[in-house]
Amino acid sequence: MPTPAKGYAAVAADKPLAPFDFQRRDLGPGDVKIEILYCGVCHSDIHTARNEWGFTNYPIVPGHEIVGRVVEVGDSVTRFTLGDFVGIGCIVDSCRQCAPCDVGDEHYCENRMTGTYGAPERDGSGRITQGGYANNYVIDEHFALRISNKLNLAATAPLLCAGITTWSPLRHWKIGPGLKVGVVGLGGLGHMALKFAHAFGAEVTLFTRSEGKAEDARRLGADHVVLSSNKAMMRSLTGQFDFIIDTVSAQHDVNSLLKLLRRDAVMCMVGMPDQPVMVNSFATAGRRGLTGSMIGGIKETQEMLDFCATHDITADIELINMQEVNEAFDRVVSSDVKYRFVIDMASL
Amino acid sequence: MPTPAKGYAAVAADKPLAPFDFQRRDLGPGDVKIEILYCGVCHSDIHTARNEWGFTNYPIVPGHEIVGRVVEVGDSVTRFTLGDFVGIGCIVDSCRQCAPCDVGDEHYCENRMTGTYGAPERDGSGRITQGGYANNYVIDEHFALRISNKLNLAATAPLLCAGITTWSPLRHWKIGPGLKVGVVGLGGLGHMALKFAHAFGAEVTLFTRSEGKAEDARRLGADHVVLSSNKAMMRSLTGQFDFIIDTVSAQHDVNSLLKLLRRDAVMCMVGMPDQPVMVNSFATAGRRGLTGSMIGGIKETQEMLDFCATHDITADIELINMQEVNEAFDRVVSSDVKYRFVIDMASL
Repeated sequence: MPTPAKGYAAVAADKPLAPFDFQRRDLGPGDVKIEILYCGVCHSDIHTARNEWGFTNYPIVPGHEIVGRVVEVGDSVTRFTLGDFVGIGCIVDSCRQCAPCDVGDEHYCENRMTGTYGAPERDGSGRITQGGYANNYVIDEHFALRISNKLNLAATAPLLCAGITTWSPLRHWKIGPGLKVGVVGLGGLGHMALKFAHAFGAEVTLFTRSEGKAEDARRLGADHVVLSSNKAMMRSLTGQFDFIIDTVSAQHDVNSLLKLLRRDAVMCMVGMPDQPVMVNSFATAGRRGLTGSMIGGIKETQEMLDFCATHDITADIELINMQEVNEAFDRVVSSDVKYRFVIDMASL
Repeated sequence: MPTPAKGYAAVAADKPLAPFDFQRRDLGPGDVKIEILYCGVCHSDIHTARNEWGFTNYPIVPGHEIVGRVVEVGDSVTRFTLGDFVGIGCIVDSCRQCAPCDVGDEHYCENRMTGTYGAPERDGSGRITQGGYANNYVIDEHFALRISNKLNLAATAPLLCAGITTWSPLRHWKIGPGLKVGVVGLGGLGHMALKFAHAFGAEVTLFTRSEGKAEDARRLGADHVVLSSNKAMMRSLTGQFDFIIDTVSAQHDVNSLLKLLRRDAVMCMVGMPDQPVMVNSFATAGRRGLTGSMIGGIKETQEMLDFCATHDITADIELINMQEVNEAFDRVVSSDVKYRFVIDMASL
């Protein structure tokens, strides 16, 4: 028997989100059903709701930064019991058989991971997943994440996407003491990158185009703040950085950033600009690399959440009611949020 | 006492190369004087002669793929004696004190390597280096390379730039048996990349836009040849490659190539396109990297030359007389050379 759910959906690219009743799959033996408490507002939600990537099927309920509580468990569930706090990020299923799935890289599943919203369920039903701007979710326990009750639950929600997206490359490139790390851009992703890079013991520099962000950046973990428009300063930092994480989602000059890398160092883009960036061949010539990274696997997401519980790290958020989501979308687009909106699902 | 020399120089961006008499520095105690036998024609020579990079000082004698014979040695020279065959590549001096110089990466000298032509000598004389389209060269023995007399000397000249430029990244990324390597473009650099990648035991695929190059590519070391315009074929190779070396010097689509990389693999640009390449953030998202590499240090250049002597590897060349150099320039620009022009300096 399908699970009734209610939430907010987009029904067309040019329409605001509006209340929407729908059904999730029935609870399978390996599934848990979550009462959603909080859901973060990610820029991807907006791209999808407004069909800015061109592949949205309507109606669509966005939301993949979900924190909730287990209210029902299937017969074979072993990892969760009623009342547990759980998180759901961008992935709710994968093929579980390919090489990436085998090593916990479900987000690079060779047979396409199942996204939390807008993806066909793997049960052959033809049902499309719907996201977390809703009162509940039904998910296989293997894709549900444990959330410590030590954490502020609302501020934990953005860890499920903004957190893991910055955590994964910082961990992959073994950021730690003695390394100079650049963080480009101070938004939802950038503010998490500052917190993590700082927590890992690196010397952290924020690059920003906005004069007013220095104080906040230092509070969030930056040792230095550099205006990327200051050409003399940028030149003086040539070859200094061991790693740069670029969180900017708009077109921007990557060449002046690439030149800051030492030889064999890498700049990782996680902001997914929707326009290509222009790379000058001289900027990469000293084996300075440009690469990209996309969210993270379930295992590493759990490691991040456990680390955050130990180190008391969460996102800086503005809590809103469900009814305010359309205004929040507009404010995200104009970068007017410090640093992530989270919807209080009690308001639904 | 300065060393008289004669060669061919450009005197302005829009003038053909013409005979030119000039002086090199006097032979110092650590220097050797070379009688130049052969000099390759590199696209950089053309960029410089025509001031296409914007920093040429005239008159300029191009040429940095030099093979010659020692005709004079300074008092403290220990590594060479009269009659030895030597090579000179793109570097004739560096600071010898910085970290890169210490590890043999003089081409990444933090105080600027001294280029073979167009660079100020480090003796404070204000003299500017002039290249190998000439009858002789005076060089510190530490920047002169041993050339085996087993090799065809004319066909060895292009190893000094086209050779090392492709050798260095293939070695850095440890190309060998069991790895799938893509080579993009079949020109002076591309044909050396095919030879080296094949010699290292990799499975080599040439990507080209020209239908007619398959047979030649296979002879040079390609196991497979793929038309990069064949979209279905390109898609079928998604995620297959362990390394790609991109030798194209014109604007081209790097995104369709980046997608061929497996996760964490790298595409290295060595063609130095004079226009930026456009990188799509989705093309790099699976930690697929774009990077660049520039020639190589003295030690690794010597290793390459020794390897080439052992494995009988040289460039495929068209030998020309000095007087034909202007025509050769035009033919290089229109990619009409298989695969490198080399000037027979006996014709000077």
